[in-house]
Amino acid sequence: MYEGVVQDLIDELGRLPGVGPKSAQRIAFHVLASDPADVRRLAQTLIEVKDKVKFCIICGNVSEDTECRICRDPRRDPAVLCVVEEPKDIVAVERTREYRGRYHVLGGAISPIDGIGPDDLRVKELLTRLADGAIAEVIIATDPNLEGEATATYLARLMSPLGLAVTRLASGLPVGGDLEYADEVTLGRAFEGRRRLEL
Amino acid sequence: MYEGVVQDLIDELGRLPGVGPKSAQRIAFHVLASDPADVRRLAQTLIEVKDKVKFCIICGNVSEDTECRICRDPRRDPAVLCVVEEPKDIVAVERTREYRGRYHVLGGAISPIDGIGPDDLRVKELLTRLADGAIAEVIIATDPNLEGEATATYLARLMSPLGLAVTRLASGLPVGGDLEYADEVTLGRAFEGRRRLEL
Repeated sequence: MYEGVVQDLIDELGRLPGVGPKSAQRIAFHVLASDPADVRRLAQTLIEVKDKVKFCIICGNVSEDTECRICRDPRRDPAVLCVVEEPKDIVAVERTREYRGRYHVLGGAISPIDGIGPDDLRVKELLTRLADGAIAEVIIATDPNLEGEATATYLARLMSPLGLAVTRLASGLPVGGDLEYADEVTLGRAFEGRRRLEL
Repeated sequence: MYEGVVQDLIDELGRLPGVGPKSAQRIAFHVLASDPADVRRLAQTLIEVKDKVKFCIICGNVSEDTECRICRDPRRDPAVLCVVEEPKDIVAVERTREYRGRYHVLGGAISPIDGIGPDDLRVKELLTRLADGAIAEVIIATDPNLEGEATATYLARLMSPLGLAVTRLASGLPVGGDLEYADEVTLGRAFEGRRRLEL
């Protein structure tokens, strides 16, 4: 519809996740109207990110070095390991400031529908890390959905002979929410996981 | 939250229209997982679009040459001019295949709230194009909203001494829509603009 390179840009932008044809057009016209220096900086950052960012050889987190910031940090507890699906989940856990251990990124969750099995995830790498016995607890922090639960159950069974504590993040009512709006599965989990009040 | 350049990319992406922090993060991780050649092509297209694309000196449409494809086309009727707000509106009109005249892009609409007056639009350029008397009809195709209507009224008054036909696109019921779901303003316009059926 547009002349040459404008259409090329709309097509390229439309391939990004969550960017439909209308958004792609809108972004393209924003780019056309932007300061050339701003656009050049975006283009440069795109190239730089591909050049510089690798995945940490220990935990699988995104990193500019061979090992990520968290794996390099000597103040992090080496005896606790939190298993997550994606690097962005590490950011979510870090934001809580509750956790001082290390991480292991699986790179997804078991999903037979999408053809993703344990061999497609970083499960072998997880077992290698557990081999020397330095880790005492593994916290499974996969997503609280079907795939995440299946992955958690699979990992828990796999690790059971290793004699370490395997825990799962609690499910229950979101803080600040309304009980009447909670779905029945969440509310059921909240009952299941109820705790005695310490007075 | 992320290390260096990953956060830079999320920040840069978050500046694009319609891209919030969550989408920016999602796109950034998509970029990290993409083929480097694909990302390089996107970056290259961004730079190319700023290098190559200019605005047509006649109509204000986006163009890789001094004059756009439509202004250069000798088959387009030089006696009819369609006035639109943005280059993307030209694409919308072209898609109808109903119009064979030329265009004039205003670069927006009059909007006192946003501090946009007639001097911020390509109104002077429009009057210059009308000066030689070659244009017999001006079709005002600004958006059917408050700003577009105000702009249409302003332009119609400005052009009234020139003795040419000034028309406005019809407002009415969208084709394929349901009468009961039409808002009252649109339905009112549909009554106002009703036409005798030719039998």
